[in-house]
Amino acid sequence: MRIAQIAPLFEAVPPKLYGGTERVVSFLTEELVAMGHDVTLFASGDSITRAHLEAVWPRALRLDPNIRDTIGPHMLLLERVRQRAQDFDILHFHVDHMAASLFARQSVPTVTTMHGRLDLPELRPVYLGLPMMNLVAISQSQRATFPEGDFIATVPHGLPEHLLMPMPAEQNYVAFLGRISPEKRPDRAIRIARAAGIKLKLAAKVDKADAEYFASEIEPMLGPDAELIGEIDERTKPEFLSAAHALLMPIDWPEPFGLVMIEAAACGTPVIAFNHGSVPEIVEDGVTGFIVDNEAEAVAALARVPTLNRDKIRAEFIRRFSARRMAQDYLNIYESLLIPQTDRLRLVG
Amino acid sequence: MRIAQIAPLFEAVPPKLYGGTERVVSFLTEELVAMGHDVTLFASGDSITRAHLEAVWPRALRLDPNIRDTIGPHMLLLERVRQRAQDFDILHFHVDHMAASLFARQSVPTVTTMHGRLDLPELRPVYLGLPMMNLVAISQSQRATFPEGDFIATVPHGLPEHLLMPMPAEQNYVAFLGRISPEKRPDRAIRIARAAGIKLKLAAKVDKADAEYFASEIEPMLGPDAELIGEIDERTKPEFLSAAHALLMPIDWPEPFGLVMIEAAACGTPVIAFNHGSVPEIVEDGVTGFIVDNEAEAVAALARVPTLNRDKIRAEFIRRFSARRMAQDYLNIYESLLIPQTDRLRLVG
Repeated sequence: MRIAQIAPLFEAVPPKLYGGTERVVSFLTEELVAMGHDVTLFASGDSITRAHLEAVWPRALRLDPNIRDTIGPHMLLLERVRQRAQDFDILHFHVDHMAASLFARQSVPTVTTMHGRLDLPELRPVYLGLPMMNLVAISQSQRATFPEGDFIATVPHGLPEHLLMPMPAEQNYVAFLGRISPEKRPDRAIRIARAAGIKLKLAAKVDKADAEYFASEIEPMLGPDAELIGEIDERTKPEFLSAAHALLMPIDWPEPFGLVMIEAAACGTPVIAFNHGSVPEIVEDGVTGFIVDNEAEAVAALARVPTLNRDKIRAEFIRRFSARRMAQDYLNIYESLLIPQTDRLRLVG
Repeated sequence: MRIAQIAPLFEAVPPKLYGGTERVVSFLTEELVAMGHDVTLFASGDSITRAHLEAVWPRALRLDPNIRDTIGPHMLLLERVRQRAQDFDILHFHVDHMAASLFARQSVPTVTTMHGRLDLPELRPVYLGLPMMNLVAISQSQRATFPEGDFIATVPHGLPEHLLMPMPAEQNYVAFLGRISPEKRPDRAIRIARAAGIKLKLAAKVDKADAEYFASEIEPMLGPDAELIGEIDERTKPEFLSAAHALLMPIDWPEPFGLVMIEAAACGTPVIAFNHGSVPEIVEDGVTGFIVDNEAEAVAALARVPTLNRDKIRAEFIRRFSARRMAQDYLNIYESLLIPQTDRLRLVG
C-alpha cells in the first residue's frame, strides 16, 4: 500500500528529545516499512526513517529559537501533501484539525489520529464544524470525552518489540518517569514510596513552565530516599525500569494515552497507577500492575508487587502494545477506507 | 459587488481594545458598505458592523482566557468561508498564509492583505511554497523586505474621515501614543522632549511582555515633565492629539505601517518620526511633519514645528489616508481580478 504519514514539524521523527506524537509516528512508519509497505513520511528534514522522507522544513521547529511563526511551516506541509496526494492510497495525518478542510475536497482517503486531549471546550465546535476527518482515538477514555466526534476507530499506541527489553537487575527502588508537572503528581509518588519505606528515583525533566512548581512544591520534598536523576534517554530506560520494583503513575488528569506505562511493561516492570484517563485500558489490574484510587491503596499495592510475574507483563506488552499490533490496526483501517463506504467495516475499537 | 472580508478571530471587528488588523478590517468593511457594496464580514460574534456578520466564533479569542488552541477556530473560519465562497465575487483575507492552499483550488478570486512584518526568515519559504495568493502590502517598505513575494499592489491604510477630528486646543506638550516597548523607543521620546524643554505625555499601554522593560528602563525616566497617562481610547484621542505640538515617533524597527502617524495627521498634529519602515511613505517632510535620523535632529525639528500648517496636515490626511481612498484602492484591485488574467491591470502601487 502507498501510505503517506504526515507528522507535525515541532520535533524530528523520531524526536531528538521529548515529543510524544512524533515518537509514535516514527514507530508506526518504521513498522509499516518493515511490513513491506511503500511509506512516505512528511516531516522535518532532521528526521531519520527507512521510509521516503519528504523534508518539508529543514529542521524541527521547537529546536529552532528563531522560529516565531509555527503555523506557516505547517501550511507549507499541507500544501506539499496536497500536491502529492494522488501518489498515495491513503493519507494519515497527525496534525489535529489542520488538514480537514483542504483534504475534504479531494479523492484520496484520509485518517487523522488525535494525539492530544479532546476535552478542551474550544475543540468541540471546531471538530463539529469541520468536514469528515475519519478520526482515530488513542484510547476509549480520550474518545469518551468527545462522544459527538467523527471517530472511526480507537488504536492504542505501540512500541517496537525490541526497543526496550528487560535487563537482569536487582530491584531496589520504585520509579517515576516523565515530566515534573502538577498533573503528573510527583508529590504523590514521593509520599507513597516514603510510606512504603522504599527508595524512589525520579527520572524526569523540569520544563521551564514547571520550574516554579518544581522549586516550591517538589524540590523541598526530595532527599536521599527520593532522588531526582534528571531526564533519561531511550538507551538508559531499560536499565532504569528493569531495576525498579514498580513504576508509579499517580496522575491527576485524563491522560489520553501515557506511553510510559507501556514502556514499563516492555521491561516487565509493574505499573501502579491512579485511575484516570487511559489507565484502566492499559494496566491490567493484578496482571501488569495495580490500579488504585488513593495514596494508601498505592502503598498497599506496592506490598503486593512480588505477586506479579514480570515475564507475563512483558508477554502482555507484546500481545497488546507492540508497534506491529498498532501498525496492523491502522492497516485494517486503511483497507476499510479503500473499499466502498457502504461496505466499510469498523474493524477496530 | 459581493465582497467577503475575512478577519482574524483574535479581536472583535472593531477591537474592544488594541488590535491593528481588526481595526483596519473594520474601517474597510464599513466604508465599502457606505459605498453601496454587499459586504459580508467573517469575524468573531462580538463584532459590530453594518455589513452582514458571519459570526464564526462567539467572541474574540484574545479576551477568552479559556482558549488554548487558537488555530482550531481559524480552521473553522476558513471552512465556513470555503462553504460560502460561491456567494461572493471576491474573497478578501486578512489571515496571513492560512487561506492559501484551501482557496487556490476554487474559482472565486482572492486577495490577501499582509498586516505584519515580512522579514521573519521562516515566512519566506512559506510564501514561496504556497500557491498564488494575490498579496497586498500595506507599505512599499514592507513589500521591499520580501521582493520575491507575489504582490499585486500596495494599499496604505486609511481612517474614516470623521473618526478623529481636530479640536480647538492650546498646544502645551508633545505626545507619545501606543505601546511601551523597546522597538517603539519611549526612552528616546523622553530624552528628546526633555532636551527641547517641552513636557511629554505618554498615552501608552504596557503589555505583560514589556513589563520588565518598562520597570527597568522607562519608569525610572518618568517625572513631572514626562508623564505616563495610560492607554486612551478612540474618544479621547482627538483631544490628546489636538493639544500636542507634535507626535514623537522615534521608532527603532521596520514598522510596516504605523496607524498612529495618520491618527495624528487626522487631528492636524505634526509627526516627528525616525526614518524606519513606512515612515517616509507616510510623513511628508516639511509638510505633515519631520523625518529625522537621531535625537538631536528630533530636538531641532521640534523647534520648527510652528512652521507647519495644521489645516494643511489635516487636508493631506484626507487626500492620502482616508478610509474612502483605501476602499477605492481595494475596489480597483477587486475589479482587476474579475477581468481575465491577461487583461489584468496593476492599478495600485
